[in-house]
Amino acid sequence: MSNPGLLITLEGVDGGGKTTQASLLVEDLEAAGHEVVRLREPGGTRLSEKLRLLVLDPQYEEMCDECELLLYEAARAQLVHQIIRPALERGAVIVCDRFFDSTYAYQAGGRGLPRDLVKTANDLGRCGIVPNATLVFDIDPKEALTRATHEGADRLESEGMEFQQRVRDEYLRLAREEPDRVHIVDAIGTVEVVHARVREALRGVVSL
Amino acid sequence: MSNPGLLITLEGVDGGGKTTQASLLVEDLEAAGHEVVRLREPGGTRLSEKLRLLVLDPQYEEMCDECELLLYEAARAQLVHQIIRPALERGAVIVCDRFFDSTYAYQAGGRGLPRDLVKTANDLGRCGIVPNATLVFDIDPKEALTRATHEGADRLESEGMEFQQRVRDEYLRLAREEPDRVHIVDAIGTVEVVHARVREALRGVVSL
Repeated sequence: MSNPGLLITLEGVDGGGKTTQASLLVEDLEAAGHEVVRLREPGGTRLSEKLRLLVLDPQYEEMCDECELLLYEAARAQLVHQIIRPALERGAVIVCDRFFDSTYAYQAGGRGLPRDLVKTANDLGRCGIVPNATLVFDIDPKEALTRATHEGADRLESEGMEFQQRVRDEYLRLAREEPDRVHIVDAIGTVEVVHARVREALRGVVSL
Repeated sequence: MSNPGLLITLEGVDGGGKTTQASLLVEDLEAAGHEVVRLREPGGTRLSEKLRLLVLDPQYEEMCDECELLLYEAARAQLVHQIIRPALERGAVIVCDRFFDSTYAYQAGGRGLPRDLVKTANDLGRCGIVPNATLVFDIDPKEALTRATHEGADRLESEGMEFQQRVRDEYLRLAREEPDRVHIVDAIGTVEVVHARVREALRGVVSL
């Protein structure tokens, strides 16, 4: 990417403290004088939020894995065109809660779709964008369950622990495959301790 | 495809008489004793119809081409899993108003997305399904406009005549590329004359 901005994506199973850490990171970035754009996936535009409601709506229990995959990619393409690319071009730092690594982790790892099919879909949905840095908040899903909010626990439990374990394993695989981009952050510890690990992982990526 | 059913898809710009001809073809097929399933794209399942409303909603004028493409594919994947594949497996004849050739014609031809990108997306959305026969109701878009219903005319005009011409050209290209599957049906003539052309085009594909 030849633009002045930065895309930092936060990943991991629910219950790993992503949201809390995103807020602290945004504070640090703003304090350091960056224009910061905070996003979440799926979402971030009115159309993508509409797709989020649809893809996460439990009433559509008949939704097939490919449809789910393509809806995530559609929401992503819209977010890239409408928000991410313009923000990168004007030099902003984007902190995005989930991006295409989630699709590998959940659709390939969790659901078991072929990884090359997910890669093909991801290449369509990301529209040329690759994060400058990706932080995976790593935690054993069983441990995450004990820490999760009620809503988070519902989501973790609804797919079952084996599913969450496959998601985690896929994240760890992504980090081994792309060590320069994907950084594992141990999510066990106090908020302050994990926050210090985030700052350490982003050293050399962005001034904090 | 190694199943006993047949998938016949109807294609072409709006105003070419697809819907009328679909009804006559369905009558013929039923009279010949086939189980017939009539479908339209995007649509055919409650989720796909929901996506149809979204993708055709003019309020989402900000929708980028890639998002639009991926929403069509998501609706298609769901239709294939939920309706088309089960119907083919039990030996039904499916008559589907639009399928993946529409995506080539409108998203590659009309919108100008790269054809290999559209092919990649189509390969995801069709989930392994290829029509046994595709009939393209061919008409000059200017002529179609004079014949269209009010709603049809709105759609034809909203994208402009050059867009419709590119759509037509892409259909003609598809027919040259896959002459065994894609048959051009001259849409100029009375309903009966065009219906006879449909029957002729399907000779050897299905008993009528």
